[in-house]
Amino acid sequence: MNTRIIPLGGLGEVGKNMYVVACKDEIIIVDSGVMFPDDELLGIDYVIPDYTFLKENEHKIKALVITHGHEDHIGGIPFMVQSINVPKIYAPANAKELIEKKFEERNINYRSLLTYDENTVIKTKYFNIEFFRTTHSIPDSHGLAIRTPDGTIVMTGDFKFDMTPIGPMSNLHKMAKIGENGVAVLMSDSTNALVAGTSLSESVVDENLGEIFTACKGNRIILATFASNVYRIKHIIETCKKNKRKIALFGRSMENTVDIALKCGYFKDKNIIISAEEANHLKPGEVCLLCTGSQGEPLAALSRIASGTHRQISLMPNDIVIFSSSPIPGNSASVSKTINKLYKKGVKVFTNSMSDIHSSGHANQEELKLMIRLFKPKFFVPYHGEFRMLKTHADLAALCDIPKENTFVLENGDVLKLDKGTLTKDGKVTAGEVYVDGSRIGDVGSAVIKDRILMSNNGVLVIIANIDTENQKLLATPAITTRGYILVNENANLIKEIQNASATIINKSLKGRNFNFNDMKNDIINGLMPLLSDKTGRVPIILPIVMDIKQKEKNKTNSF
Amino acid sequence: MNTRIIPLGGLGEVGKNMYVVACKDEIIIVDSGVMFPDDELLGIDYVIPDYTFLKENEHKIKALVITHGHEDHIGGIPFMVQSINVPKIYAPANAKELIEKKFEERNINYRSLLTYDENTVIKTKYFNIEFFRTTHSIPDSHGLAIRTPDGTIVMTGDFKFDMTPIGPMSNLHKMAKIGENGVAVLMSDSTNALVAGTSLSESVVDENLGEIFTACKGNRIILATFASNVYRIKHIIETCKKNKRKIALFGRSMENTVDIALKCGYFKDKNIIISAEEANHLKPGEVCLLCTGSQGEPLAALSRIASGTHRQISLMPNDIVIFSSSPIPGNSASVSKTINKLYKKGVKVFTNSMSDIHSSGHANQEELKLMIRLFKPKFFVPYHGEFRMLKTHADLAALCDIPKENTFVLENGDVLKLDKGTLTKDGKVTAGEVYVDGSRIGDVGSAVIKDRILMSNNGVLVIIANIDTENQKLLATPAITTRGYILVNENANLIKEIQNASATIINKSLKGRNFNFNDMKNDIINGLMPLLSDKTGRVPIILPIVMDIKQKEKNKTNSF
Repeated sequence: MNTRIIPLGGLGEVGKNMYVVACKDEIIIVDSGVMFPDDELLGIDYVIPDYTFLKENEHKIKALVITHGHEDHIGGIPFMVQSINVPKIYAPANAKELIEKKFEERNINYRSLLTYDENTVIKTKYFNIEFFRTTHSIPDSHGLAIRTPDGTIVMTGDFKFDMTPIGPMSNLHKMAKIGENGVAVLMSDSTNALVAGTSLSESVVDENLGEIFTACKGNRIILATFASNVYRIKHIIETCKKNKRKIALFGRSMENTVDIALKCGYFKDKNIIISAEEANHLKPGEVCLLCTGSQGEPLAALSRIASGTHRQISLMPNDIVIFSSSPIPGNSASVSKTINKLYKKGVKVFTNSMSDIHSSGHANQEELKLMIRLFKPKFFVPYHGEFRMLKTHADLAALCDIPKENTFVLENGDVLKLDKGTLTKDGKVTAGEVYVDGSRIGDVGSAVIKDRILMSNNGVLVIIANIDTENQKLLATPAITTRGYILVNENANLIKEIQNASATIINKSLKGRNFNFNDMKNDIINGLMPLLSDKTGRVPIILPIVMDIKQKEKNKTNSF
Repeated sequence: MNTRIIPLGGLGEVGKNMYVVACKDEIIIVDSGVMFPDDELLGIDYVIPDYTFLKENEHKIKALVITHGHEDHIGGIPFMVQSINVPKIYAPANAKELIEKKFEERNINYRSLLTYDENTVIKTKYFNIEFFRTTHSIPDSHGLAIRTPDGTIVMTGDFKFDMTPIGPMSNLHKMAKIGENGVAVLMSDSTNALVAGTSLSESVVDENLGEIFTACKGNRIILATFASNVYRIKHIIETCKKNKRKIALFGRSMENTVDIALKCGYFKDKNIIISAEEANHLKPGEVCLLCTGSQGEPLAALSRIASGTHRQISLMPNDIVIFSSSPIPGNSASVSKTINKLYKKGVKVFTNSMSDIHSSGHANQEELKLMIRLFKPKFFVPYHGEFRMLKTHADLAALCDIPKENTFVLENGDVLKLDKGTLTKDGKVTAGEVYVDGSRIGDVGSAVIKDRILMSNNGVLVIIANIDTENQKLLATPAITTRGYILVNENANLIKEIQNASATIINKSLKGRNFNFNDMKNDIINGLMPLLSDKTGRVPIILPIVMDIKQKEKNKTNSF
């Protein structure tokens, strides 16, 4: 029959997960994530997968199936549904609520968002999709078994195995049964494939958090954690109840999570939640402030509390601040800044590097092996992760009796063909990164980013000259303006030199044979570079703007 | 007598160390470092301390004393000697060579750079400075005991205790003797104050590296480490000798280090060093390529080898790449990029997170306690480190019987007064950050950085209008140019809209009462913002340039 598996995002990176399974005129998409840009993508808000392949095969799309509600799995949905016709989206209850919030915020009117649970079976002409419950750092995480005419494809979604979880157990038995019935291809989460052993159980985290609460009975506790980690929050609420503390929430995403969790029934103690004002009227030992900002995000609640700029909360010397989190790579500097500010206020800080008060949501090596053993697939495709994670995960599969030649370490856009139970590589489709900046998708390209990097290093210098080409005359001293290079009013002499040098270059260029605007602009750029480099040791982006006064009278402008 | 201790850099931060000890008309400066800018300081090359205090007290400066040759202790010297008269610089042999290289590179003619060793005593009218050898990740690291009329001040410099070092042992006995004779103030390195236990011995690192060499007999070994870590390099050379491998060096700083090390006699096997070309003619098992680039620096040797852009070295599938290093905070993303590239080439990679093949040069908590116990000072001032490190170090001192009230956790610029053996806080002097960008010191200020941040996020939009104020006329459609915002040629309609909107604003402004240029510019900025935000979801820096054609004929320009 020929079923195809096409990763459009999530391979060679952590983020923007999106996987396509196609058979004849049917396409199922699994997940639709965003990635947060790295430091080099200046000013970019999100990175999403290139949707070209989907756009070109729009008429085949039957459904988008969401494994769980993290941004790297649902964040792309608003952009996707605005550019592609997606007839149905299936999501588990928690993810569905989060997606609806996104639609609300962006005024998107999408009507075919459906819920599934572990017992749902989605049927199309060629596919039967079943689900199995997994454990992850957000509730309602699921893996998929996609029955195709060419064999069963299993995608784990994000997962860990936790034998003593706070929420429901992974459905080991359903996984085992699917495995027994034969799996052609297993695609499994590689995020923590570099980490040996077994991940810390959420119960141990909770025990350790509980000990801090017991030890700090009389102190106000300020606790920051990932807002999406509903089970962690559920436990914190229970711990507060046990310790007779009320909880005040800080940060919009924290409020959203608790809203949704109450709505979905993950916890029920509505009365324990109080307002910031009420919290300020209770004794320190009677409250816990639950905040966003565990990553040191400058505008998040904890950062503002640490800086002393929070509207409602001022730190007191006996406060306890707990980071039930670990810094995502790239955030360690901003987390350090927040911690230093907290130390300066004299409060006591607990972090995960001191005591085990956070656990990742992803499986370590021993758990990854268990997953491979449960499904005992014929072919193995590590997904979700940077190349070294995928490669290391592939090596783990080899230890679990998956022959090396049956393992595929891929890139986004690679096409796998599953034909009567046999998997082979079969070409490539368009895949890549699209930048979202502001409200516009994809119109900030690498040229714009390159300019931003140049300007961020050395600024921009604009030279404006009015010329009269007919009479080969520069009409006045060129005007100079600059940003991010030098301060104009502190560098009057240098500005004068730049003006004079520009005038000389322009006059020479005007009198040259074959005068044209582009040559003149290049002359200005090339002529000024040595001067600027010599005087300041750096060269900004030089933007010459030359206007022909005669042309302008005909209402034309020359600029680039 | 009143001796004063003034930190000008190195407190509340890791970097730009500089400490002043002053008595009457004498000033001794200890160390003169740079700090590498964090991500927010766009385009800045170095951060140095504010030298205002030194400038104002220039005539009192007797000498600069250097503890060791790392950039955060010597990197500021070229900037300092160009703006302040420093009569003498004392440095240990290795640091002296490194400082001379700096002078050479910058064509600085400084003639009073002197060497000291552990037996040197520097005497001035009020001070007697003695030295004690410490262990650190660069040879020739020393601490200072400064005898003043008001008591002895000890500064440890950067240090660790290693009971089985590769180079010479710390001089425990000299430290003990100084301690026995009475120390008024101990200032001690806080860099690793957050890390429990004892640091890994360099001998263990070397043993583990040796095991990799033994296990990979037939493979080419590519090894990246910090170029300044002479003892690590010494051991690698010895391991190569034992394993009958020749060594080729890649990266200028690696070549410099080996040059200086041979000159200073840290190792002698000149013959083991071969050229890249020679290395390419030997069998894989007969060579070791020693590279810079352990931090993923894009232009360093290892990064270019990993990217396949190195002129001389191409990776082969059986190569072994060893990172004998750990990523400095902020570099983990670039290190990951390099590692992913190496995995893609199919080579085997060893990092410190897999096996102990790197050790920090700084003391962990147990070693810090030993230092405090050896000197048993009356007063304790933690230095070198972020606030939380200083604070934690102060807590460690309390465990070692230093009364809390005798410990000072300070900021740069705080003044300590030592009067007949008693230490008190005594006001503040000017201290802060000065940015070096290109060749100019301090002329890039926070206003320029702020512009760079704005431009790096959203770019810049320049609107140029020629007007005739006399006749209240806009002479032509305003010209538009932009960088880092949108691409002009892909957004013709938007550019047209911006031109029209600008024309409308300018015409209105021209006809208003009390016309002036600044108001018009503000009108343009405020008038365009909603349009730009609406159309693109982001607002660039808007630079309106309005030129009065009548004024220009008198050869004046209006720009800002």
